[in-house]
Amino acid sequence: MKKKLSFLFPILDWTDGYSSDTFRADFVAGVVVLFITVPQVIAYAFLAGLPPEAGLYAALGSLIIYSLAGSSRTLAVGPTAIIAMMTLEVASSFAAPGSGDYISVTIKLGFITGILLLLLRLLNFGNVISFLSHAVVTGFITAAAILIVASQLPPLLGLSTSSDTRLIGVFSHLGTHTANIAALVISLLAFLILIFCRLRLESYLLRLRFSKSWASALTKTAPMYIVILGIIVTSLFNLNGTYGLPIVGPVPSGLPSVSLVSLSLAEFRDLLPSALLIAMVIFMESISIGTAMASKRREKILPNQELVGLGLANIGASSFGGFPVAGSFSRTVVNFASGARTPMASIVTAVFLVLAICFFSSMFYFLPKAILSAIIVISALQLIDFSALRKIFIFNSSDAVTFCFTFLAVLIVGVESGIIIGVVISFVLLIRSSSRPHIAVVGRVGGSEHFRNVLRHQVATSSSLLAVRIDESLYFVNARYIETFFLNELADRPDVQNLLMIFTATNFIDTSGLEMIEALSENLEEIGVTLHLAEVKGPVMDKLRETDFYRRMKGEVFFTTDEAFQKLGGI
Amino acid sequence: MKKKLSFLFPILDWTDGYSSDTFRADFVAGVVVLFITVPQVIAYAFLAGLPPEAGLYAALGSLIIYSLAGSSRTLAVGPTAIIAMMTLEVASSFAAPGSGDYISVTIKLGFITGILLLLLRLLNFGNVISFLSHAVVTGFITAAAILIVASQLPPLLGLSTSSDTRLIGVFSHLGTHTANIAALVISLLAFLILIFCRLRLESYLLRLRFSKSWASALTKTAPMYIVILGIIVTSLFNLNGTYGLPIVGPVPSGLPSVSLVSLSLAEFRDLLPSALLIAMVIFMESISIGTAMASKRREKILPNQELVGLGLANIGASSFGGFPVAGSFSRTVVNFASGARTPMASIVTAVFLVLAICFFSSMFYFLPKAILSAIIVISALQLIDFSALRKIFIFNSSDAVTFCFTFLAVLIVGVESGIIIGVVISFVLLIRSSSRPHIAVVGRVGGSEHFRNVLRHQVATSSSLLAVRIDESLYFVNARYIETFFLNELADRPDVQNLLMIFTATNFIDTSGLEMIEALSENLEEIGVTLHLAEVKGPVMDKLRETDFYRRMKGEVFFTTDEAFQKLGGI
Repeated sequence: MKKKLSFLFPILDWTDGYSSDTFRADFVAGVVVLFITVPQVIAYAFLAGLPPEAGLYAALGSLIIYSLAGSSRTLAVGPTAIIAMMTLEVASSFAAPGSGDYISVTIKLGFITGILLLLLRLLNFGNVISFLSHAVVTGFITAAAILIVASQLPPLLGLSTSSDTRLIGVFSHLGTHTANIAALVISLLAFLILIFCRLRLESYLLRLRFSKSWASALTKTAPMYIVILGIIVTSLFNLNGTYGLPIVGPVPSGLPSVSLVSLSLAEFRDLLPSALLIAMVIFMESISIGTAMASKRREKILPNQELVGLGLANIGASSFGGFPVAGSFSRTVVNFASGARTPMASIVTAVFLVLAICFFSSMFYFLPKAILSAIIVISALQLIDFSALRKIFIFNSSDAVTFCFTFLAVLIVGVESGIIIGVVISFVLLIRSSSRPHIAVVGRVGGSEHFRNVLRHQVATSSSLLAVRIDESLYFVNARYIETFFLNELADRPDVQNLLMIFTATNFIDTSGLEMIEALSENLEEIGVTLHLAEVKGPVMDKLRETDFYRRMKGEVFFTTDEAFQKLGGI
Repeated sequence: MKKKLSFLFPILDWTDGYSSDTFRADFVAGVVVLFITVPQVIAYAFLAGLPPEAGLYAALGSLIIYSLAGSSRTLAVGPTAIIAMMTLEVASSFAAPGSGDYISVTIKLGFITGILLLLLRLLNFGNVISFLSHAVVTGFITAAAILIVASQLPPLLGLSTSSDTRLIGVFSHLGTHTANIAALVISLLAFLILIFCRLRLESYLLRLRFSKSWASALTKTAPMYIVILGIIVTSLFNLNGTYGLPIVGPVPSGLPSVSLVSLSLAEFRDLLPSALLIAMVIFMESISIGTAMASKRREKILPNQELVGLGLANIGASSFGGFPVAGSFSRTVVNFASGARTPMASIVTAVFLVLAICFFSSMFYFLPKAILSAIIVISALQLIDFSALRKIFIFNSSDAVTFCFTFLAVLIVGVESGIIIGVVISFVLLIRSSSRPHIAVVGRVGGSEHFRNVLRHQVATSSSLLAVRIDESLYFVNARYIETFFLNELADRPDVQNLLMIFTATNFIDTSGLEMIEALSENLEEIGVTLHLAEVKGPVMDKLRETDFYRRMKGEVFFTTDEAFQKLGGI
């Protein structure tokens, strides 16, 4: 019973034997994460076209629920830049950003996303397929980062944001307005301070004999200082009144009213495709971070439980009036590095978040929007991973093609269609590569039991034996190609009497492959060539034994290539 | 120069050293094939909703052109049941079968199909992917055969054909009419004679001391006797006048006027998707037969040249006023079995076809439509291959699922959509199967160099070494699954210090796979586990050597599993 319950609520797992030492570690981590969470979630709400409280509520709702139901011990959930960008793209096609309808669409989107994540768990999706290849994800995130940076150019200049999320929309929007000088100055100062903190602050603090963990925590919380500094300067010098600097304005204080989202079937149907894509991206983002953290501590990963945790977290966020949430890479890393041991750290963050919402939210009135944009831009730039790009271009040319298409498609037609185009291309290239497998004619290396490609090595062969190793499973996309290879080789070698197919790398055979071998075997008999097989894998052999082909075949199935060469080629 | 020309016109290949002996063989085969061709192509024209001459013209145009440009020496091209059925489905959505517009649509369809086959050759499609798995093809052909049989039920009963090609349309059409007694009697007699010929005639003729090849030829040409008999009986007893038996009616005599098809861009665009699907089915049907014949004679197969031959054959057929054509299975087999050596046999058939069209076409006036339907039904039933169905259900469960979906989809929504649904399902199942690869923890068998699954065999292992063989390439659909497998195994085995990945069956690694290995290796180092690789294939190793991962990895890349076990496990 306990086991079953802990499966539903992993909290029962880690509260067993929870000590005051562990709590102290979790408490420190929870507080450090709070100081990154507040500015980030307000900024991401702004990126998503929403008021600051939407970000705070989303973080609060998801942190509480995920700490009860999630499987990762250190994942920090809440609004993220990528999901905020996707939310903006989806919701702005239903209502004007900032309007009441718009807020309501984002809440419904989060709710449907949560429900879909739970449904995906029922479909065992956590253990099924990962559709998004590294190349697609890298292409999409790199392009999304550029879109995010572009979308913040207007607010950095003191202008309103563009309603068109595509690059072309943002730039045509920019062209029609003139910048606000106060916003421009604030933006530049914010960038300078943020960049200084990122590049220099930690080593500076270390030289001042701060401990390593404190130095790191103080560096990571830099956005909070900028926010506080910005609020003080703006209110002191009345920058909004005097210079027309756009500010955040009134933020309601007090906790949000919690209510389950109600929606019509039509709304559900309209938002479904986008919510499904967002759900997949949420899962992919979160499971990547969760896996990385688990492998550093020899902990298990339960992808299906993660779907439950994230699904409930999204339903939690939407019930509090927030928008879709995911595992945040930057906040999770800080949580882990600050010593968090259990989800108690997230509960600590959530408790302080309640205090902040109740007592400090009016403080954000004077926060300049340009500062939020600066925080967003710095976060977005960190999403671009040049070493990953380099790896893709060096290691695998198909992946390079997929990356380029995804990247350009996201930039030109948007995040949603871009990802879909990338996924389709990655599958097409995948199938194309296995449609023309590597096939080697092999011979014996010296007196050994090793058999290698005749084109690469000096090997012994026999003119009456054609021995071929196929480096791929045998199935419909390549069966014809392989058959054509054999026929053309045989037409060039009139002395061949035995054809040996070596199956070391053949992991499965489908009916098209079987049909091909069968027809080949029968037709070759008519020209006096016998087909043999060697090194057939267990699971493949199990299936083959049940076929008429196996019962009727004239050739042999050899256990090793060595035996086949001794018997058929005399080598 | 000669070589280049013979590439364009394979006729230059086989006319070299052509002897009178070869001509005698080709002549006999050509005449035998003629006697099957005439009734079949008239019947298939009827199936496609076209007048008899459309079938004769299509056969004539395609036979002449293919014998000059095709790569297969014995393929008999012309109208086939499947392509006729697809033509009917496509063209009847543009015009009413039998109308002038309808004939014009089928001619344009053949022309566009021909152009597309040539374009596919430019894309090197012949050597690229075969999209249609055995299960999809079997499902589609089995269902198409049933649709064809159903479509002939009305004419067998003396009624007009249904304009709805789907099962439901045919049966609702049947319900609203009453049968013609003369048609019913003629149908039953035709079936009896055709079935008798198929089952008994050959052995009967052999007992009468006919030679094997004559007995076979006389048996195969049975449809011709039925046609002649039908014409004689109908005209003698005036069955059309007295009993209202539907007959073929006037067939123009004399050769068709040859003209290139002219079409508007809009027509091209409308017919393009259907023509593309028809082109692929034509290629798939023809190349299957061509490959089977080539392998019986140690001849080469040139898939791209086949595209040129079939493309030009379709353009030829449409220029003569015919509809789309493909390689006919039954006529090719007869051609081959009757001793055809070169495409000269097809030229012989074409020459006699010209004579038939010029001097005998008026003869077909009294041919009862019910006889054409009987010929179609018998041909269609032969398309159903029960041994292939059995194989699919025994050998591969994914193929069985694909077959069922394709079969039902073709029956319910039609040939075109059915094939597309089948193709999508076959790819989804393919990817699904490689997303959860077979992974085996292995140990040493006795004192040998063999390493086997610990679950299946008694093997020696070490508690500090986890050796795992992955029976699949490492790429985005399975990278996460494999990583999760490792993490969960390691969480269960606290003593493990070395993780060995054995790559005997790993044919390629994409960037997602590399990224996974790299992250795993780094994260495992933090918990004191070192990652090693063994038996990495040449092409994979070439790529791996260029990566930072390879330069930085702490573990080793072992040439054999044996070396790894000796060094890491002391076994």
